[in-house]
Amino acid sequence: MLKNDLLLRALRNEPVERPPVWMMRQAGRYLPDYLKLKAKYDFFTRVQTPELATAITLQPVDQVGVDAAIIFCDILVIPQAMGMQVLMEEGKGPSLPRVIQTQKDIDALITTGAEESLKYVYDALALTKSELNGRVPLIGFAGAPWTILCYMVEGKGSKTWDKAKQFAYTQPALAHQLLQKITDITISYLKLQAKAGADTVQVFDSWAGSLSPADFKIFAQPYLFQIANALKDDVPVILFPKGSWYALKDISESSASGVGIDWCITPQMARELTGNKITIQGNFDPSKLLGTIPDIKREVKEMIDAFGAQNYIANLGHGITPNVPVDNARAFVDAVKEYESKK
Amino acid sequence: MLKNDLLLRALRNEPVERPPVWMMRQAGRYLPDYLKLKAKYDFFTRVQTPELATAITLQPVDQVGVDAAIIFCDILVIPQAMGMQVLMEEGKGPSLPRVIQTQKDIDALITTGAEESLKYVYDALALTKSELNGRVPLIGFAGAPWTILCYMVEGKGSKTWDKAKQFAYTQPALAHQLLQKITDITISYLKLQAKAGADTVQVFDSWAGSLSPADFKIFAQPYLFQIANALKDDVPVILFPKGSWYALKDISESSASGVGIDWCITPQMARELTGNKITIQGNFDPSKLLGTIPDIKREVKEMIDAFGAQNYIANLGHGITPNVPVDNARAFVDAVKEYESKK
Repeated sequence: MLKNDLLLRALRNEPVERPPVWMMRQAGRYLPDYLKLKAKYDFFTRVQTPELATAITLQPVDQVGVDAAIIFCDILVIPQAMGMQVLMEEGKGPSLPRVIQTQKDIDALITTGAEESLKYVYDALALTKSELNGRVPLIGFAGAPWTILCYMVEGKGSKTWDKAKQFAYTQPALAHQLLQKITDITISYLKLQAKAGADTVQVFDSWAGSLSPADFKIFAQPYLFQIANALKDDVPVILFPKGSWYALKDISESSASGVGIDWCITPQMARELTGNKITIQGNFDPSKLLGTIPDIKREVKEMIDAFGAQNYIANLGHGITPNVPVDNARAFVDAVKEYESKK
Repeated sequence: MLKNDLLLRALRNEPVERPPVWMMRQAGRYLPDYLKLKAKYDFFTRVQTPELATAITLQPVDQVGVDAAIIFCDILVIPQAMGMQVLMEEGKGPSLPRVIQTQKDIDALITTGAEESLKYVYDALALTKSELNGRVPLIGFAGAPWTILCYMVEGKGSKTWDKAKQFAYTQPALAHQLLQKITDITISYLKLQAKAGADTVQVFDSWAGSLSPADFKIFAQPYLFQIANALKDDVPVILFPKGSWYALKDISESSASGVGIDWCITPQMARELTGNKITIQGNFDPSKLLGTIPDIKREVKEMIDAFGAQNYIANLGHGITPNVPVDNARAFVDAVKEYESKK
């Protein structure tokens, strides 16, 4: 039994006293206790050791007071489970030395049972669930198929995702084959996350915004919707196609329970496009957390006033950055908790 | 007298037989003849030597057949003229070793007459104008004040522009002082460009999209509009606040003659937001130039069909990338030239 189920009620469109609040990347580099673990254990040790992943996941619940925990993990565990090498070099971002280019490359990917190699994620979820002891809901997550394809084809981060887009535009049949394989594994992976204790799951389409509205409908949206459909009887699904404001109407009519938005759209416009048919999550500009605490508190209040307190999850519009003072992160969370609706 | 004035007619909302076409960064790294000059002369030698800048500016007119030349230069000549050191290291992007942080830093900037140190730009424009001999119009340009502030404060490129945004959010009075100084110099600079032969000018707000709609209205829009107002009796002004689709309605009601848009908005939505009150420029996804020539030609036709051939300038949604085959760039231009309106 959850003592604080604000997040789940908001996702089910049920009345809440105030909006729930959590922060993308809340378990991470702005927290001194995380940095201590980071100094001792490399990235994949932290991800693959359930005790470490659990400790990291709980830090922002204990120290910042968020209304949900999100499991400490990485979206690139899926390419890894499919047999690709993924390197995480400190300060350089991820890299995949052997990228996908041909039918042969796709054929060589592990598909059947790939999700089973991610047992450490389910173990971390189960352990975290037990440690949370009902304090707040636990969020699972995965990368969206388009975003995972971006890394698999490009091999590293990119401003333009030229190679990934060239692959998709010039070899659409191969791209769809790859996207479908990623989708199938992601569905199995998220179902196992739900089984292990995730109360809801978020799908991060971090590079959706590199696509035009027309191409988003071809290469991103169908796979996001397959995932939302497949999971809807397990747990509520939050889709976060960063930058793809143009898809908000379609997403509001999908099986997803929530949609994340970045700060480059007004709350009014986001509500207008989604017509209150879906719970909206966002959209505080992460750079604002570098401002003063009174400014943060005022702006959070203005944000909630603009979205309205119902069918809404307070969050940032993107991940929290490493240089944010912990007190400022806490001020963000406190401001949501102190919110009183104008009635 | 211009033999081809399609661009200027489109900007003045006059009827055209077909839309004009040019490409952002058309004078650049995808052209083998440019790469030959790049191998011989460093960046600032190319920019500051009128004969070289002119030769580079003319290359895409001669070799790709665009309907306009845009002077080869860089937006960071403004911080340079204001006394800041700007380094261009090959493959690393620009860097400004001493950034703006305090009132003292702002006070130390050269303001009065800073535009006079950019004589080489006006000389290059005059020489290019003479070499063009009326073949096509000549476009001048500058960076928008917000984008220039980003570089001045951050000191180099950034994904999030955290430092620049923190400066603006926590010291708005200083930020506005700096933005106003940049604006004043940019207006003088663009007026001198017009006097030297530029038929129209474009203002690049490349990092406008890092701002929320509310902050765009505070830190970007007022300065863009000051520039458009100040120049409107000299030459038509094109504003290109990349990513700021939310500002299209306001921009359509400003003194600007044209607005550039990226590919992350449908032509229909862009027309709806601007209500045909301004000429739209864009918005081909640059990655599409890596596709096949038949695909490029089909997609260009679809794009013009969607925007309509009037009050429209065919262009990319961002700069052309270095890896585009010249034949593909030519196919893009040819497809516009071959366009026949459905009548």
